[in-house]
Amino acid sequence: MNDVITPREAGFAMSAEWAPHDGCWMIWPERPDNWRLGAKPAQKAFVAVASAIARFEPVTMLVSHAQYENARASLPPAVRVVEMSSNDAWARDIACTFLLGPDGKLGGVDWPFKSWGGLYFPWDKDDAIAGKMLGLERATAFRAPLVIEGGALHVDGEGTVLCVEQCVLNENRNPNITRQDMERMLKDYLGVSHVIWIAEGVPHDETDGHVDNLVCFVKPGVVLLSWCDDPADAHYAVSRAAEAALQGARDAKGRALVIEKIPMPTPMFYTQDEADGVDATASGMNRRAGERLAASYVNFYIANGAIIAPAFGVETDEAARAVLARLFPEREIVMIPAREILLGGGNIHCITQQQPATR
Amino acid sequence: MNDVITPREAGFAMSAEWAPHDGCWMIWPERPDNWRLGAKPAQKAFVAVASAIARFEPVTMLVSHAQYENARASLPPAVRVVEMSSNDAWARDIACTFLLGPDGKLGGVDWPFKSWGGLYFPWDKDDAIAGKMLGLERATAFRAPLVIEGGALHVDGEGTVLCVEQCVLNENRNPNITRQDMERMLKDYLGVSHVIWIAEGVPHDETDGHVDNLVCFVKPGVVLLSWCDDPADAHYAVSRAAEAALQGARDAKGRALVIEKIPMPTPMFYTQDEADGVDATASGMNRRAGERLAASYVNFYIANGAIIAPAFGVETDEAARAVLARLFPEREIVMIPAREILLGGGNIHCITQQQPATR
Repeated sequence: MNDVITPREAGFAMSAEWAPHDGCWMIWPERPDNWRLGAKPAQKAFVAVASAIARFEPVTMLVSHAQYENARASLPPAVRVVEMSSNDAWARDIACTFLLGPDGKLGGVDWPFKSWGGLYFPWDKDDAIAGKMLGLERATAFRAPLVIEGGALHVDGEGTVLCVEQCVLNENRNPNITRQDMERMLKDYLGVSHVIWIAEGVPHDETDGHVDNLVCFVKPGVVLLSWCDDPADAHYAVSRAAEAALQGARDAKGRALVIEKIPMPTPMFYTQDEADGVDATASGMNRRAGERLAASYVNFYIANGAIIAPAFGVETDEAARAVLARLFPEREIVMIPAREILLGGGNIHCITQQQPATR
Repeated sequence: MNDVITPREAGFAMSAEWAPHDGCWMIWPERPDNWRLGAKPAQKAFVAVASAIARFEPVTMLVSHAQYENARASLPPAVRVVEMSSNDAWARDIACTFLLGPDGKLGGVDWPFKSWGGLYFPWDKDDAIAGKMLGLERATAFRAPLVIEGGALHVDGEGTVLCVEQCVLNENRNPNITRQDMERMLKDYLGVSHVIWIAEGVPHDETDGHVDNLVCFVKPGVVLLSWCDDPADAHYAVSRAAEAALQGARDAKGRALVIEKIPMPTPMFYTQDEADGVDATASGMNRRAGERLAASYVNFYIANGAIIAPAFGVETDEAARAVLARLFPEREIVMIPAREILLGGGNIHCITQQQPATR
């Protein structure tokens, strides 16, 4: 809607995820070439996540006309169901990134979306969602000039954004992209003043290493890193390199970062049965038994008064819960069985998008 | 959402159209077997109507994913565009009928929709729209037990509803329907206490005589009737019979009705060129050159501070404007060229649906 003025110029900025929300947006999973068994197990998992969040803030579930009745019947009445066409269900990456203006007015960034460098085809419906959401909310829309996904950025609400180079500077998103161009866009469209770069994301992550699967802010000056203690695991070197980058960084306010750690989940792999439940496709992902799943406890959602975090039914779940409880003492820790979400290529943070409170 | 409690029991009722609105809902015309030339001329007419109403109150245009970008680009920024699938574009008949609760809470009736007794097939998307709208607005939804369209009823906001028997008691909507059953439903779902019946609607009206093409309330105790002075015209007998029924009626408050008249438009017919622009279809309407158009000036929309009325480019337009200006002295009279809407089978009241103000 606005081709010239940037959010920064208009006085808009992205809030931290822990700031109060007016609600949360999700998208109903459907495509049988990504979600096994016609997406029925994933739909149950999404219902569990939506139901958990709806205890703490309003939830809107976007769904195609074809699945509208099924979504409405599957979700509790408190969840608002709204028709909107999509190619897949990753609200973090596809939805707008909401912004607040200086007068508390709602705005948002409509990032150009290219399916994580072309993981599936087509992606036209996903690319349209951010603009449709902003239109629905009568919010001020800013279409960004460069491709990035919402899961590729984390802000502290005080001028800092965290990004992974492997993803954000990947030429599969923006050919000939320079760090300088990307930094300028992040500053202009998120209202931040400083970018902290980490080289690589979680191994086996098909997003090319979204930051939201590796490290997040838990409050200004404090980050939480998915940590691996097994030198034989590919995540070992990645987590150490991220730690070093974070140790060397300063945030927008000049603070050194406190680095908290949460254990990487016990390694998990696609089973034959799981891979067999996914439609084969020429243009999308093809799941194979034995493939490593890019699991991380960092991929949680901060709701009003709660942390909605993934559980995998493995031994590390309780240690992860203890870390979250220590870091968010004022929030209820709600862990939701999330293997079915993980099988689709992401987790709870990836399937949610907060809308900040305008009041 | 609510299968047992009726709106009346829950304290909900339909407001008169002249009560303050929070906005107006419309649906984008698309189908090439009803709208000539790929619906492009109709879309221009709908844009003109939406733009006119948007001067006075917020407008939401519902549109399929396929036409979303075109609708967004065609409409002024003030009009909210929202994705919603439909079979056609008659918001009066397809959308919910909004209600207000005793505490000012928004509710609405989701009427079962069967395509005016089966004029086209399928009608599943149209039938889903009312529920989707109420969900979107987080309003209390009441699914009605009998088929009726919003254009088949007019209320005075003081307990009276106007209906045409030919349409509302037609077995093509509800087999074996009785007047008693229909009156009970109207009372239960509109919160009215009295039904005024007129035998027949405007000739050539493919809705089987929607009341909103023949007669409407302009305020409590006053109705406006589309009037024909030519004994050779089929409308002559219909308008006289309606006058007689209205003369014999009392409203819910026991008042006799003041009957105002507005001239029937100069007779109009499909041209060969117009009929040729419509796709042939086995399951929908087939337009033929020479067919009479069911035109009426009564088919206007009451917006906040304005009357949005059809003009046809014929000699009766100015006389109609004078009647409207006399009856609505406190509102601006805005007449919009509406032949393209008429070609699709209705007019401005048929393509609009008011949402009453909850404040």
